[in-house]
Amino acid sequence: MLKVETLTSPRNPLLMDVRRAARAGSLTENGCCLAESFHLLDEILRGDCRVEVVLASQSASTEVQLRLRTRPAVRMAVVPDRLFDAVAATEASQGVMVLVRPPAWTLEHVFGKLPLVMVLDGIQDPGNAGAILRAAEAFGASGLIFARGTVSPYNPKAVRASAGSVFRVPLVQGLAAEEIQAGFTRGNLTVYASVPKQGQAVHVADLARACAVIIGSEGRGVSDRLREGTTALHIPTASVESLNAAMAAGIVLYEAQRQRGGRP
Amino acid sequence: MLKVETLTSPRNPLLMDVRRAARAGSLTENGCCLAESFHLLDEILRGDCRVEVVLASQSASTEVQLRLRTRPAVRMAVVPDRLFDAVAATEASQGVMVLVRPPAWTLEHVFGKLPLVMVLDGIQDPGNAGAILRAAEAFGASGLIFARGTVSPYNPKAVRASAGSVFRVPLVQGLAAEEIQAGFTRGNLTVYASVPKQGQAVHVADLARACAVIIGSEGRGVSDRLREGTTALHIPTASVESLNAAMAAGIVLYEAQRQRGGRP
Repeated sequence: MLKVETLTSPRNPLLMDVRRAARAGSLTENGCCLAESFHLLDEILRGDCRVEVVLASQSASTEVQLRLRTRPAVRMAVVPDRLFDAVAATEASQGVMVLVRPPAWTLEHVFGKLPLVMVLDGIQDPGNAGAILRAAEAFGASGLIFARGTVSPYNPKAVRASAGSVFRVPLVQGLAAEEIQAGFTRGNLTVYASVPKQGQAVHVADLARACAVIIGSEGRGVSDRLREGTTALHIPTASVESLNAAMAAGIVLYEAQRQRGGRP
Repeated sequence: MLKVETLTSPRNPLLMDVRRAARAGSLTENGCCLAESFHLLDEILRGDCRVEVVLASQSASTEVQLRLRTRPAVRMAVVPDRLFDAVAATEASQGVMVLVRPPAWTLEHVFGKLPLVMVLDGIQDPGNAGAILRAAEAFGASGLIFARGTVSPYNPKAVRASAGSVFRVPLVQGLAAEEIQAGFTRGNLTVYASVPKQGQAVHVADLARACAVIIGSEGRGVSDRLREGTTALHIPTASVESLNAAMAAGIVLYEAQRQRGGRP
């Protein structure tokens, strides 16, 4: 039988920690990620991640209990609606928030057996980051690197846009350029930098080999420091300057899947 | 010499109209679209659209005047910063807002010489709509149809995400399913409906012929009414249920460009 607590004080340390993480778009003090929707709750329950606690608004508590009926060991806490809304990151919240401990991956996991690594370099929009995570899983990337200065993959909006992929695809975050480059050298990866017009067209570049593709932010592109020693890669387009960063990443991944013969 | 007005009253009819359109995510009463950034101002000045007025916040007025120095016929109005922010659709506004009359396209323009038409069916997220507009221009789509019940292409957030493509790619909006289907029949188009798993894989479907591809909303997919008589089309993916709607549209467009041999 599921044991349900009730948290009613805005000064409750757990709720204060959640609120801070929601505002900062980051992990909680003790390293948990906020996932805010019933869809994500279902995705998480299907996976291997450790759930610390599921918070439910009073209004949504029956529905949340129903979803947790086969998981009596999960800690669940009900929070009054107004307090829940004050704590949540989402504006139109569904009344459910999962605190989940994301898997601890290393670069070795990210590289996998045949590396196809997407590097996010300075992308700030959590929706774009989430869409890239989702496409990375969809097209069989080995993993992702979130370079230092990039939005957190555990930003609640990125988590939502990833539709749960953030908990399944190997990723590391916060790495400095030198650490990333040292990793590429160790793994003997060919490194491409995605740019608007120069270099090889994406369908000509060899993405079947062990490789990484760096996607820069839309404003500044790939940083000079990470661009060193890479091969420029572009998506041929008819007329516009560049594509949305997530769109560019998705097309590179689609093309890589085609070249690798990995179509299901 | 550019003539600059000043608008200081919150009751000014123009400002009230702009404020209403910004909140509703739609055109102004007299059919103008709001474009809110210096980048969009530059894009619009390079194109053929008729600019009704350029609004500048007091702080940004010098910069705006500089951009308009070669366009003395353009009407420019300066608005006190606080009033400007109260009127604008964007939270972190750059202090510039262009009211521009979008081109009046017909289905004939949208079909062009060799139709490659993207149909947005119920997509609500303006960021996704804008990313699709941008990809449509990038990969040489003939045009777009925004079915009734879809976010407006002139929603300020869609305009921004389109990076100006919304003013260049032929599009029609607000059409009922019957009107869309009648148009397809008249134009003798092959019609594909993008779905998660069924039907032809996108690289197998013949996108080089005169065709349209319907992209549904993420929650509900393509509506039953529009799906009638179409061929199902999917993007092969390894593991996730579906891709982000904009990502799916972009990959279909990339694939169509490949098949059409249209790579620059």
